[in-house]
Amino acid sequence: MRATVTVMLKAGVLDPQGKAIGQALHGLGFAEVGEVRAGKVIVLELDEADAGRARVRAEEMARKLLANTVIESFRVAVVEG
Amino acid sequence: MRATVTVMLKAGVLDPQGKAIGQALHGLGFAEVGEVRAGKVIVLELDEADAGRARVRAEEMARKLLANTVIESFRVAVVEG
Repeated sequence: MRATVTVMLKAGVLDPQGKAIGQALHGLGFAEVGEVRAGKVIVLELDEADAGRARVRAEEMARKLLANTVIESFRVAVVEG
Repeated sequence: MRATVTVMLKAGVLDPQGKAIGQALHGLGFAEVGEVRAGKVIVLELDEADAGRARVRAEEMARKLLANTVIESFRVAVVEG
C-alpha cells in the first residue's frame, strides 16, 4: 500500500512560508493570488496488504513523528500499489 | 477557486529528507515502512472564477516559482471555493 500524509498548519496559525510565497507570486505579476498556505506531503510505501490497517498505522506515524499536532493538522490517503 | 500544487522530487533524484523520515519511523518501530518521499504542498486562494484558467495560472506559478522543474515534478488540483 502507498499512504500519502499531508501536513498543514492549522487555520489561525501564522504561516510565514505561505506569506513569502504569496508575496513572491505578486511580485511576478500573479495579482489574483490571495491567501497562500504551505505544507508538507510525505509518501510512504508500506509493506501492508490491508488498506484499513495501513491507514491506522500511517495516522499513528503522523501523530508520533510527521505532524506537530499542537499547530499542524494532517490528512491520510491510502491507495493500492 | 482554490488550487493545490503538490511538488515532489522526480523519481531517481536522491531524497535525503525522505530517507531520514524513513529511518526515524523504523527507529520508532514502524517496520513496515519502505521507501519514503517527502514533498511540498502549496494551497493558493485565487480570485478567478473559471476553473480552467485557474489551473493554467497555477501551473504557470509552479513552473516559475513553486517547483524546480529540473529535479521536481508538480501536480495541480483545482476546487471551487
